Amino acid sequence: LEEDEEKVKALLSTNKKEIDNLILNFLPQTHRAPEISKLYEMMRDYPSRGGKGLRGTLCILWCEMFGGRMDTALITAASLELFQNWILIHDDIEDGSDMRRGAPALHKKHGVEISINVGDALHGKMWELLIKNGDLIGPETAIKILSEFSNMLNETTEGQQMELSWTVNNNWDIREEDYFLMVTKKSAWYTCISPARMGVILASAERSPVIPRDVVGWEKDVLDRLISIGLDLGISFQIIDDVLNLTADESKYGKEILGDIYEGKRTLMLIHLLEHADQTSRSKIVNFLSKKRDEKNDEGVQFVFEKMKEHGSIEYAREFARKHSERALKQFDKLCADYKIKESEARVTTRSLLKYMTTRDY
Amino acid sequence: LEEDEEKVKALLSTNKKEIDNLILNFLPQTHRAPEISKLYEMMRDYPSRGGKGLRGTLCILWCEMFGGRMDTALITAASLELFQNWILIHDDIEDGSDMRRGAPALHKKHGVEISINVGDALHGKMWELLIKNGDLIGPETAIKILSEFSNMLNETTEGQQMELSWTVNNNWDIREEDYFLMVTKKSAWYTCISPARMGVILASAERSPVIPRDVVGWEKDVLDRLISIGLDLGISFQIIDDVLNLTADESKYGKEILGDIYEGKRTLMLIHLLEHADQTSRSKIVNFLSKKRDEKNDEGVQFVFEKMKEHGSIEYAREFARKHSERALKQFDKLCADYKIKESEARVTTRSLLKYMTTRDY
Repeated sequence: LEEDEEKVKALLSTNKKEIDNLILNFLPQTHRAPEISKLYEMMRDYPSRGGKGLRGTLCILWCEMFGGRMDTALITAASLELFQNWILIHDDIEDGSDMRRGAPALHKKHGVEISINVGDALHGKMWELLIKNGDLIGPETAIKILSEFSNMLNETTEGQQMELSWTVNNNWDIREEDYFLMVTKKSAWYTCISPARMGVILASAERSPVIPRDVVGWEKDVLDRLISIGLDLGISFQIIDDVLNLTADESKYGKEILGDIYEGKRTLMLIHLLEHADQTSRSKIVNFLSKKRDEKNDEGVQFVFEKMKEHGSIEYAREFARKHSERALKQFDKLCADYKIKESEARVTTRSLLKYMTTRDY
Repeated sequence: LEEDEEKVKALLSTNKKEIDNLILNFLPQTHRAPEISKLYEMMRDYPSRGGKGLRGTLCILWCEMFGGRMDTALITAASLELFQNWILIHDDIEDGSDMRRGAPALHKKHGVEISINVGDALHGKMWELLIKNGDLIGPETAIKILSEFSNMLNETTEGQQMELSWTVNNNWDIREEDYFLMVTKKSAWYTCISPARMGVILASAERSPVIPRDVVGWEKDVLDRLISIGLDLGISFQIIDDVLNLTADESKYGKEILGDIYEGKRTLMLIHLLEHADQTSRSKIVNFLSKKRDEKNDEGVQFVFEKMKEHGSIEYAREFARKHSERALKQFDKLCADYKIKESEARVTTRSLLKYMTTRDY
């Protein structure tokens, strides 16, 4: 199992390098107007900061597993990483995050006004790359992939709106089902569902031989099932991500440990705690979390963290994530069995990656 | 001439209604999650506020003038208006504008965080509409139009970066050539060049009979010339827009008169003034303009305005705009002559609209 994880990490790192290369060659570098050169420099900042490249590799693996070539998926994979980068610029402003991947968030370096525009410029580059993709995969498939991106963006902005409106309205009465809708939209689509669907669409357009030609309607069925698999996996991924914010090793993590409590982020742990704490503690917690970030002290944050441990909120979230991850893998195995997907390197690695996404420790 | 203007206004208003209809039917209305319904409501806010619909009508007219049908251009025209709407949401935040089309700017109503995301969601809808456009005009032409949008967005964000960096760095040593590069990028492309190019691309894809079949390479030549025409026209349009900010009738204008001076916007008038004022006045003006918006008083704004009048800065800008508008119209006439474009309703109206854009009084 540990060996599997090492293999996955190595693959992520190899793919990430190739994707980064593509992105950094694609993004413009200099302009005769110094202001615009500065824009280019800021657009290259987040893409140069590392990150795991999960989404890009997921797309490539699903493509390969269904018989497509890595090269076919590379531009799409790079566009997924660009999506992640531009939307993080805006998210960091919206969520008031100070740090990103071990360095100050873009708006902390250049101000909110400039950074909104950098995000838009990078967003535009994502579409540009996807449009150029037409030269590689043909206009019909390019339009299909563009359409997946458009849908992914709709879901993500809707999820972000849910979360932001809770913050802005100081709403702490979040039911688990509200939380799951938010996480599905804000994370599951762009982290799991869309990359997988894109990979399969690309493989299908290559008319690869993995699925026998006489099997009719397989693509639609597979794409539908990927929503269900990706949903379980995406929720599980996000919960583990939030758990790591509380418990990870700071040197590996790149963001501030307990930062989510400072930001008052609605996590499954917090919702569990607010449901189970007694009235006095609940009031105290809500009162504290409602404060502005710079009015929150470390003692208050520690108090919330201790209460989570006391009520088993972290264990509850971990167990929830474990169950959903297991359910996702079961569906994955059934999909492979139903379509007789051969036990290729790609299939084995995809499964390991899906597992890794919900068992990683940073 | 006044009759021409009335006709143009009537056409703008008719087209605007049709475009608005398309947009408001396309944008989602309600969702079972109240937070998302609220998002939809905010996304519909700017598109419901009116505006002239210049860019959409320009695209339609150029399409018709080259023999295309209005229906072919309608989705593209609507997407141009969506572009205008989402980018204004972000611009209003970045420029610190309080009012938009006679009502508070979106971030004044809902806060910066929520509004950035609303802009992104509306931005996504623009691409969604352009991707759906493929069903109407075919994937190849859809990709061409998408590519024009991507280019337009690159130009616009680069122009915005130039202007923002002057503000953030409190830079008042702007040369006219810097200003023209900024305006070309920030305004001329999305207001004039791109809508015209898209109209011609759409008409060309319809294989319309306006240009004889045996004329080879006309499309590339026309698209190139539209950059030059749109550049002259766009600069002229923006200068007049800025002049109107100083001199328009407030009841018609929808924004705050002299608002640009409060915002410290670098306009041709201001650059002219800073070049021609004596050292003492220049220092006083720069000092005043460098203040934060809420520290600027009406007297100071009036002082800058009076100095502009004293140095003939407004007349200088008007004359500059007039010359460039004239040059654009000359190029337009030559284009029509070179390609023997028939004196159709569309051709006459396009010319009137180009003229109107730089002679309007609000």
